[in-house]
Amino acid sequence: MSTQTMTQDIEILPSYVSGQWWRPENPERIADVNNAATGEPVARVSTDGLDTAAAIEYGRTVGQENLGTLRIHDRALILKQLAQYLTEHKDELYEISYATGSTAKDHLIDIDGGIGTVFTFSSKGRRELPNSNVIVDGAVEQLSRDGSFLGEHIYTRIPGVAVQINAFNFPVWGMLEKFAPAFIAGVPTIVKPATPTGYVTEACVRLMLDSGLLPEGSLQLISGSARDLLDHLDARDHVAFTGSAATAKSLRSHTNVQDKGVRFTAETDSLNAAIMAPDVTADSPEFEAFVKSVVLEITAKAGQKCTAVRRVIVPQDIRSEVISAIEARVAARATVGDPRSPETTVGALASAEQQSEVARSVRTLIDSGAVVEFGGPEALSSVPSEGAFFPVTLLSFDNPRIPAVHEVEAFGPVTSVISYNGTVSDAVEIAALGGGSLVATVCTHSPELAGEFAAGIGSHHGRVLFLDRDDAKTSTGHGSPVPHLVHGGPGRAGGGEELGGIRAVKHYMQRTAIQGSPNLLTGITGQWHWGASANTVTRESVENGTGEHPFRKSLETLRIGDQFVSELRTIKLDDILEFAHKTGDTFYAHTDEEAAMANPFFPRRVAHGYLLVSWAAGLFVEPAPGPVLANYGLENLRFITPVTYDDAIRVTLTAKKITPRVTDEYGEVAWDARLTNQNDEIVATYDVLTLVSKTWPMAEDAE
Amino acid sequence: MSTQTMTQDIEILPSYVSGQWWRPENPERIADVNNAATGEPVARVSTDGLDTAAAIEYGRTVGQENLGTLRIHDRALILKQLAQYLTEHKDELYEISYATGSTAKDHLIDIDGGIGTVFTFSSKGRRELPNSNVIVDGAVEQLSRDGSFLGEHIYTRIPGVAVQINAFNFPVWGMLEKFAPAFIAGVPTIVKPATPTGYVTEACVRLMLDSGLLPEGSLQLISGSARDLLDHLDARDHVAFTGSAATAKSLRSHTNVQDKGVRFTAETDSLNAAIMAPDVTADSPEFEAFVKSVVLEITAKAGQKCTAVRRVIVPQDIRSEVISAIEARVAARATVGDPRSPETTVGALASAEQQSEVARSVRTLIDSGAVVEFGGPEALSSVPSEGAFFPVTLLSFDNPRIPAVHEVEAFGPVTSVISYNGTVSDAVEIAALGGGSLVATVCTHSPELAGEFAAGIGSHHGRVLFLDRDDAKTSTGHGSPVPHLVHGGPGRAGGGEELGGIRAVKHYMQRTAIQGSPNLLTGITGQWHWGASANTVTRESVENGTGEHPFRKSLETLRIGDQFVSELRTIKLDDILEFAHKTGDTFYAHTDEEAAMANPFFPRRVAHGYLLVSWAAGLFVEPAPGPVLANYGLENLRFITPVTYDDAIRVTLTAKKITPRVTDEYGEVAWDARLTNQNDEIVATYDVLTLVSKTWPMAEDAE
Repeated sequence: MSTQTMTQDIEILPSYVSGQWWRPENPERIADVNNAATGEPVARVSTDGLDTAAAIEYGRTVGQENLGTLRIHDRALILKQLAQYLTEHKDELYEISYATGSTAKDHLIDIDGGIGTVFTFSSKGRRELPNSNVIVDGAVEQLSRDGSFLGEHIYTRIPGVAVQINAFNFPVWGMLEKFAPAFIAGVPTIVKPATPTGYVTEACVRLMLDSGLLPEGSLQLISGSARDLLDHLDARDHVAFTGSAATAKSLRSHTNVQDKGVRFTAETDSLNAAIMAPDVTADSPEFEAFVKSVVLEITAKAGQKCTAVRRVIVPQDIRSEVISAIEARVAARATVGDPRSPETTVGALASAEQQSEVARSVRTLIDSGAVVEFGGPEALSSVPSEGAFFPVTLLSFDNPRIPAVHEVEAFGPVTSVISYNGTVSDAVEIAALGGGSLVATVCTHSPELAGEFAAGIGSHHGRVLFLDRDDAKTSTGHGSPVPHLVHGGPGRAGGGEELGGIRAVKHYMQRTAIQGSPNLLTGITGQWHWGASANTVTRESVENGTGEHPFRKSLETLRIGDQFVSELRTIKLDDILEFAHKTGDTFYAHTDEEAAMANPFFPRRVAHGYLLVSWAAGLFVEPAPGPVLANYGLENLRFITPVTYDDAIRVTLTAKKITPRVTDEYGEVAWDARLTNQNDEIVATYDVLTLVSKTWPMAEDAE
Repeated sequence: MSTQTMTQDIEILPSYVSGQWWRPENPERIADVNNAATGEPVARVSTDGLDTAAAIEYGRTVGQENLGTLRIHDRALILKQLAQYLTEHKDELYEISYATGSTAKDHLIDIDGGIGTVFTFSSKGRRELPNSNVIVDGAVEQLSRDGSFLGEHIYTRIPGVAVQINAFNFPVWGMLEKFAPAFIAGVPTIVKPATPTGYVTEACVRLMLDSGLLPEGSLQLISGSARDLLDHLDARDHVAFTGSAATAKSLRSHTNVQDKGVRFTAETDSLNAAIMAPDVTADSPEFEAFVKSVVLEITAKAGQKCTAVRRVIVPQDIRSEVISAIEARVAARATVGDPRSPETTVGALASAEQQSEVARSVRTLIDSGAVVEFGGPEALSSVPSEGAFFPVTLLSFDNPRIPAVHEVEAFGPVTSVISYNGTVSDAVEIAALGGGSLVATVCTHSPELAGEFAAGIGSHHGRVLFLDRDDAKTSTGHGSPVPHLVHGGPGRAGGGEELGGIRAVKHYMQRTAIQGSPNLLTGITGQWHWGASANTVTRESVENGTGEHPFRKSLETLRIGDQFVSELRTIKLDDILEFAHKTGDTFYAHTDEEAAMANPFFPRRVAHGYLLVSWAAGLFVEPAPGPVLANYGLENLRFITPVTYDDAIRVTLTAKKITPRVTDEYGEVAWDARLTNQNDEIVATYDVLTLVSKTWPMAEDAE
């Protein structure tokens, strides 16, 4: 009764839509949310009367427009500032998160993990993507013999909104890991968190908006039921769902996904395996690492991770040792209880409903033949009764092919041990019964076995962690998706992909093949294509003052297509021999006429490839200090026609790609370099990578 | 009556399943197929009693096993031989194809186009993929500070079958363009052609099987209804559908696609646009190219291409000139009639049903406001009556936003002209009403306009062809997907991707993130990772005879991880100055102490990057003739720590990736090269690309 009163005193959790915080006026449908550890009311949610169509339209218009005024690097830099802001405020999120049942260590996964993901995307966005709004994908394809018709691929952002529908277990990470790549792509996000922990997401979204860093319309929040959200989406929009297979199915079957081309990806929990390979013995370092990993996976977040280990698959002859070792480690390390207590290592489940659900699933597994090694519903009395606690539970099955162990997921601190006959093929076959998983651990110290396992289980897994003595200490862990690598999996795991570095950014973009002349593709991509118009100067025109060498231009005036064509320089046999002598590269093709002629690729003694690129640098260089600060690398160097003595070479160097850095006083310029001989045959092609100052002289604070 | 008798005399078209040609014994459900040009019976199909479950299982077992004994390059080479075999036999396919209504020119699109696609995949598979069964995707991610825990992505083939369900318009190309990438991936194909032209597919499949080139189980054919095919598929399998949006929907909503994770892609026809940009004038070369392209698109294959132009979007003020020019060109060039006649430029539609369907769609468009400029159902009397002919038809709409013109597709020689107000944004908005398309042509000579159009329409198109005077003659054409570029499109176009070079191969593979120590990732990928075990020799051990330099090993004995570590060599100021003088690269950072020190990146005068890599070659070279035949290039060169005078460098060179060529007596070896200085700081990293003989001495026919 007092709880009732208290609940009604709690204000409805607000949404942030169409540019303002919003609460329903007279809601009829309200969901009450309780503290997972204490059972006391903590939040109330309702979206009665929320205009989802308006929110979507707001994203498609205001959000798209504001994000579109920025470029990829601008947005990536905002993410860095945002992550810094959240870091400064993370204690507020920790404090709120205890009510979800999470321990201080669990906060590191959800909150620090989420912020770290934003940092990584910020960094990758600036290091690996162009500073524009068009991303080129892959190589240029020459579609006509004369080079006048080319093809390539570009990514441009989708014109709609990125809707994320999240699970209760990661109210912060689950939101940030989807928001960051969509934001870099330039696509506005609408977040729909799960009701049981949506108040944590609300707190985080509030911080993000309060930071003042985000363009208006780039982030909206629906606190509560999504209602008719999908009814208003179409092929312009993207829905990323994390949660149960059943909800994924209901969303995927929505007519707008089926008929209207809404881009839909799902990441659903799966029955992930930890497999001990047959080379592991009870006294090997891998055995200990394996047991540690399994226990960590069923205790962290009280086992409420889509990636947690649900099936422990070990060779038959080591099975009892594994069970004993897990039991010993749990007994020594796992303390279930108040998430705020420093002694606690296993917090509460997210809600009383989850507690019942886990108990029900464990009973189903027991009914299917599982033996309870420890824990289980009968041990409920061993954990505090006031919250949604559940004892750490280990089951085992004699028959590894019982369907239930591969299908029924107890989404809590629960896992099952099954065994295989010691052959890789048997382990692979058993693992495959999961029907597609997010992740598996394979514990082995043998590169050959690792190869066999990868070939066998790769096709039904989104990620496989290979655990051995060399990486046991440095591993980021079975259960932790990292922003650099794809998260998601085939089949039961939903068939989607999230994360994966810039792959994730591209999920919010459309890949389009473009075909056209070099000039038009240059106009579209902002990268110069061989054959396109060029603003050409020669050594002669530079020296007589009628042309400006592109190396004398800072980023203020340098444009793609600025081109320098050198004079021809003849290479004599003595040059080759001297280069060989001086560098020590006395390979016979440069020094022994007869042996060179016997080589299938050379007409007689030829110049070193390194001589050619060194001389090319001499042909295009501007010696005096200028805006080109350094040559930091070379890409795609190919030697095409051998150069023998008395041949001559010329270099044509063209500004191809200009990437000003948002945090430095300089940027990267890639130059198309093409060496030709006296007959205009192509000798070599490559890209020269340089750092070029934004201004010249360089700004004061340049260093 | 006589036709009836004749039909019954025709044998049922066989299927090829589970290792044998198969015909139903007492079929009840039979579909009769008529010659499109004459109406005479040409084939009968039925799959009554076909065991599709057995066919799928046969593919998953026999097909997977046989394909799995080969590697990617082996399979790619088989494709080349197959394409050569089909080329030798293509006259047989031409002859059969006339009955589909296709002209000799149409055969070039379907039959030669299909064979050409196989050649391209063969070539790309061998040039761009490793010669193994694991494809590495993207860069290695260092996930721990000390390099002991790494991440990267691999592709491995899916463990099921690749089912293709094809449209009637390309019985050969439609089959080969899906078969080739699946075959390279190592996934067995089951072809389900459309009934009206399935006899052409059957003839082609028969040739492919008769060639004796294909491993048993790698190709099966279902001639007729797919029946319960989808009922037996799951997350191991892939379905690629081409056809109507309605059929795509029905397949996509199948429970095995929705719940069991069958990988499903669709390519459905769309209302593709040809857009004349505002810079085009009636007397510009682009105007003529545009009109030619539109007329070609509605006449080739009698307009029965998913990619055909259905919406001609032109500036309002040039609209009447465009309509007149199209009319004039059609009058001069388009002759509808017997596909065998050399005068004919427009053959028959595929069937009488298609003829009725096209007439019905045109009437719907007329009812929605279309003006018939020429052709139309009323002009049916102008074409031969014995077959499924339809007159070339041009419609126009005054209101460019009438839904029908963006939604109703008349799948024949029919297109509609609509106009925009001359701004890019208006044209983009009108084009977007198509709801997602396979392809658009944008006709412009302006790189800036091309950029604006690409940014505007890219996100709702799978391909955009930019047509101008420079590529009009060499363009492969609006309607022709090329194997190098993605085919497919968002929204209405089905949301799938086909083709796109090796991207298409990956559609039949699962991407998996792998994490582990350098040794384990080396075992999995077959590529050496920095930090993994190495078989090290030094200059000293090579010279005293205790070590064999890896450059002395042919592919018979060379293994990844074979490593050479050089001595340290000190660089003196004179070396730098002499290199500057000799190469001409007198950049101040190498020659002017004061200026070098003022540069933000250099401590004082430093060695040229080119000097470093040249000396490195001198440090690792083996001068005498040996199995390393040539250095053909360099990749990913990055200069990390500057080297100044009196520093010393050492090179560590490790065999990283070995790719024996299936058609040469040598292969490609990529070497991980790492330069370090006297303090073991990394100076530069790069990959050295070499050609290495398979044996030493080299085989006789090596050249």
